Amino acid sequence: MPTDFDATRALFDLPEGVIYLDGNSLGPLPRAASARVGQVMTQEWGKMVITGWNRAGWMEMPSRIGDRIGQLIGAEPGHVVLGDTLSIKVYQALASALEMMPGRRVILSDTGNFPTDLYMAEGLCRTLGDGYELRTVPPADVEEAIDGSVAVLMLTEVDYRTGRRHDMAALTRRAHAAGALVVWDLAHSAGAFAVDVAGTGADFAVGCTYKYLNAGPGGPAFIYVAPRHAETARPALSGWLGHEEPFAFDLTYRPARGVERMRVGTPPVLQMAALEAALDVWDHVDMGEVRARSLELQDRFISGVEAACPDLELATPRDPAERGSQVSFRHPEGYAIMQALIARGVIGDFRAPDILRFGFTPLYLRAQDVDAAIAHLAAVMDGREWDRPDYRTRARVT
Amino acid sequence: MPTDFDATRALFDLPEGVIYLDGNSLGPLPRAASARVGQVMTQEWGKMVITGWNRAGWMEMPSRIGDRIGQLIGAEPGHVVLGDTLSIKVYQALASALEMMPGRRVILSDTGNFPTDLYMAEGLCRTLGDGYELRTVPPADVEEAIDGSVAVLMLTEVDYRTGRRHDMAALTRRAHAAGALVVWDLAHSAGAFAVDVAGTGADFAVGCTYKYLNAGPGGPAFIYVAPRHAETARPALSGWLGHEEPFAFDLTYRPARGVERMRVGTPPVLQMAALEAALDVWDHVDMGEVRARSLELQDRFISGVEAACPDLELATPRDPAERGSQVSFRHPEGYAIMQALIARGVIGDFRAPDILRFGFTPLYLRAQDVDAAIAHLAAVMDGREWDRPDYRTRARVT
Repeated sequence: MPTDFDATRALFDLPEGVIYLDGNSLGPLPRAASARVGQVMTQEWGKMVITGWNRAGWMEMPSRIGDRIGQLIGAEPGHVVLGDTLSIKVYQALASALEMMPGRRVILSDTGNFPTDLYMAEGLCRTLGDGYELRTVPPADVEEAIDGSVAVLMLTEVDYRTGRRHDMAALTRRAHAAGALVVWDLAHSAGAFAVDVAGTGADFAVGCTYKYLNAGPGGPAFIYVAPRHAETARPALSGWLGHEEPFAFDLTYRPARGVERMRVGTPPVLQMAALEAALDVWDHVDMGEVRARSLELQDRFISGVEAACPDLELATPRDPAERGSQVSFRHPEGYAIMQALIARGVIGDFRAPDILRFGFTPLYLRAQDVDAAIAHLAAVMDGREWDRPDYRTRARVT
Repeated sequence: MPTDFDATRALFDLPEGVIYLDGNSLGPLPRAASARVGQVMTQEWGKMVITGWNRAGWMEMPSRIGDRIGQLIGAEPGHVVLGDTLSIKVYQALASALEMMPGRRVILSDTGNFPTDLYMAEGLCRTLGDGYELRTVPPADVEEAIDGSVAVLMLTEVDYRTGRRHDMAALTRRAHAAGALVVWDLAHSAGAFAVDVAGTGADFAVGCTYKYLNAGPGGPAFIYVAPRHAETARPALSGWLGHEEPFAFDLTYRPARGVERMRVGTPPVLQMAALEAALDVWDHVDMGEVRARSLELQDRFISGVEAACPDLELATPRDPAERGSQVSFRHPEGYAIMQALIARGVIGDFRAPDILRFGFTPLYLRAQDVDAAIAHLAAVMDGREWDRPDYRTRARVT
């Protein structure tokens, strides 16, 4: 049965009068999430209080919901767990991977990676000392930079600024051939298109849930550990819920079985509940159709904007195979242009120094929304609506 | 104006037919929290989507709400920030403290500390290598064990099992005299009684919010960094929201000013909202009165249980100055006894190997509740109600 995108759109509580092209940053509210979180608060926390950990199944949420994300990223069942933030999960993956590579001390990444991945790697190298280093090269130079000194290749599949997509399978093969491990950040992949962590041979993968998975602001992150590493990866952040027997309250840490050892502290039950409800949206969705429709919407947007707004320069690759689910344009006044566009009810976002980002999310975005967004953007550019002092003063933006 | 404990009790949505003596593990639902989280979901996330980070003030929640917790623990304004879990905050505090003590490599703690603190310290020492070690001694031996080898003294003020309270001021003085830094875990202190992190000279303090602060399951943790260290403490978990300019998206990490550098990833907005509403409960509460009333309730419980249940052995010190806000008894069949008590609607909890724990929370607990709890416990013991196979089979408990 083909995916019914009108039906999926109806599952969201979309803001009125808004064309939302920022689901790559924060997905909108799934209707089921409000109801579910309300129920957890009043019926579970309110009525069960502490007994909710067992009776309402809170304690199992990180692995139960993790498995549902595992299905979306092609993981083997039982090898994804939720918790913390993406930054923390990056740290965990890197620390475990480095420890498995005692002879090498280089983390290789690219300058298009999201900064927190680089910062966390930098902090880990400082803590490790002894010559550990983060090496970054431009995205196009990654393949060539993989050599025998690299312990871990750490990449985000889709560039948060340009939307350029790495070839996950090829780079993983290349890294493995050089004897390195690979940590993939799927922040802009999970829920955007089909990912195959098992098939591509990723060693570790991490991601967040508040973008294409619509978990809400601050939703928990996830981590995947390949089955071949699951019993050997040592957690650096060895928290009690990653212990083999958390409720034995031993004085010494013993890692839990498999990916459960990547749990750290008490899981954020309200955020987990919002995520769990948000995942129901995917129940009757074919990811291949989502991808096809996303590319259609992207192509429609690219050709429409290029025809109507000659001053905007496409920053995303033209080849669909090299794209994620967002399209970016460059303009020196990108910040002000985005402010003017938002004032018209078209929400995208801006990334320094000059990137206008637009996310394409077929679950709730239609072709007519794309056409309307193009018309608004053309009006902003034609009328120089962005050229106002209040739009050109940069606020802190997300 | 004296604290009106009937009024504070009315602010909670307490489960019917239950006497809740487990607020030291998970506080009950404050009525305002349901409403507030519902509002954040539908009015903020739903209507503002990405713009909520600025328009609804989500981005400032970790410091805005952190400051309110700071008031409850005696911190200087602007020196507490929220986020992550307590385990992560322990790791951050320890890593920063160790780096400030280059000549010493010992973390000293006690065997009564909550295991995750010990596990996180153990994991950090493994990552640091080079002879870093966690040394643990029995709680009574801590003072004597502080010597010139100790880099950091890491203690939880109130023992999660026995309820024994350390002398925070004296041990901090002693550690400072030996040239060591101190990290205090206030998990069982914040909201239980007045804490004075500034006055006692704590270097770092951490804690959780789902116990006496009633933030709900998985509420965020907090960290305090003393002003004298705020600009020098280097974060090991250097995430983008702890960067001086997160939205500059620099490739290199520069720590934010002060305690803001202890932020890591995207804050869990739903959990933060629940916490913020829960903190309103404290608006007209005098912490000295809370402490006095807690001790009254504890004394009432101790004398009642000792009179009615001679087989239960008090595990908590008799001296009120050495107690937190919980009372514990030992019994070899403690697990089964707690199951039988819960079946009667009196909720406490069990901690291996033999501890029955009872938390005393004057905001919603009355003297008549304590009397009723004693009567139920006496009935369980007198009638050997615990002596059933299903009660004696241990499930995973929290």
